[in-house]
Amino acid sequence: MRILYHLPLSPYCRKIRLVLAEKRLPFDLRQERVWERREEYRVINPACTVPTLVEDNGLAVPGSGVILEYLEEAYPDTPLLGNTLGERVEVRRLVAWFDGKFDAEVTRNLNGQKYIKRLAGRGHPDANALRVGYAQLRDHLQYLGWLAETRKWLAGPALSLADLAAAAHLSVLDFAGDIDWSISPAAREWYARIKSRPSFRPLLNDRVPGINPPAHYADLDF
Amino acid sequence: MRILYHLPLSPYCRKIRLVLAEKRLPFDLRQERVWERREEYRVINPACTVPTLVEDNGLAVPGSGVILEYLEEAYPDTPLLGNTLGERVEVRRLVAWFDGKFDAEVTRNLNGQKYIKRLAGRGHPDANALRVGYAQLRDHLQYLGWLAETRKWLAGPALSLADLAAAAHLSVLDFAGDIDWSISPAAREWYARIKSRPSFRPLLNDRVPGINPPAHYADLDF
Repeated sequence: MRILYHLPLSPYCRKIRLVLAEKRLPFDLRQERVWERREEYRVINPACTVPTLVEDNGLAVPGSGVILEYLEEAYPDTPLLGNTLGERVEVRRLVAWFDGKFDAEVTRNLNGQKYIKRLAGRGHPDANALRVGYAQLRDHLQYLGWLAETRKWLAGPALSLADLAAAAHLSVLDFAGDIDWSISPAAREWYARIKSRPSFRPLLNDRVPGINPPAHYADLDF
Repeated sequence: MRILYHLPLSPYCRKIRLVLAEKRLPFDLRQERVWERREEYRVINPACTVPTLVEDNGLAVPGSGVILEYLEEAYPDTPLLGNTLGERVEVRRLVAWFDGKFDAEVTRNLNGQKYIKRLAGRGHPDANALRVGYAQLRDHLQYLGWLAETRKWLAGPALSLADLAAAAHLSVLDFAGDIDWSISPAAREWYARIKSRPSFRPLLNDRVPGINPPAHYADLDF
């Protein structure tokens, strides 16, 4: 069976879990405590990050960006990147937006400070990082709401990797109760739609010692 | 004519200049002072980063990762991503290594502190960042040398985006005289080979006010 090395509250790992489920590719999940820098793991992923996908034929695919492109090429039946060159530019632009800009401005300041730092034993959250993270989350929710209002899905008429990348980041923040959904009703409506997909169900069942998600987290009519 | 919005010492922009030249796609260069957040530029690249490529048909392709994938799909005649699924995984892994890990550990600590910070009027370099950057550069040169010793090019038998991404980062550091090439003769031999390609010539002619590159910078037999 295909194996995905992951951590439960990593948005990059969640994104790949969503993609595999949307493409109906079965896989086993294994947690990898990357900060322990396990020698066998560094052989398949020298950067020692999660996720890494290992195929039945032994091919190791390290890193979420590499895995996304690999899955599109190896399993094109459920395309998630769009068809025309222009559509594919827009999907990849938004994936880079959420995995690059949103991650640096929001996810690392909130999830990175509150969860990853504690997990790796590196102390308490920095109050300034949290303040900056919440302020920037507000701007990003408004941008996301604008996209959701003007298009059926974030990158255009079809569900794409852009929706899955955005939803993966938001799901991690929502788990910690960090999102004020009243900021953008359109973003909330989009998130309710994506959250109700069967691919999302396993993410909503993740539990992590020491963090209790808010009541609405797994509620499809939040 | 195709336009590439860029900054001269950005490794991401240099990478795209190398790719366009290797694919023999003519383009005009325009400098974009992204910290001024020009309104017309934010329309074509909402993240307001460089590079952005604008095609003759008006299609705007923002961000170096998006441009790489776009150019491979739109102009497949000179393939730079490899042929098999496994080769493409290795090329993309190394592009992510240099644009992600090397950039965070080395380029931002050296070029980011010494050049970008001054350019954007954000003060003097941080001595601790420089110390960390030089130490990590040593480790990365050894890894690069190991790749160059065991393969013809960094990702395998053919020149690929991995070589162009690595060379783009190193060229920026070499411009500032930051590389001690005696650390890895194999890395030096690989860099001399890539530096002698016609695609590299325009990069070696870049000049920036206030920084004089060392004598060996544009010397093909350094």
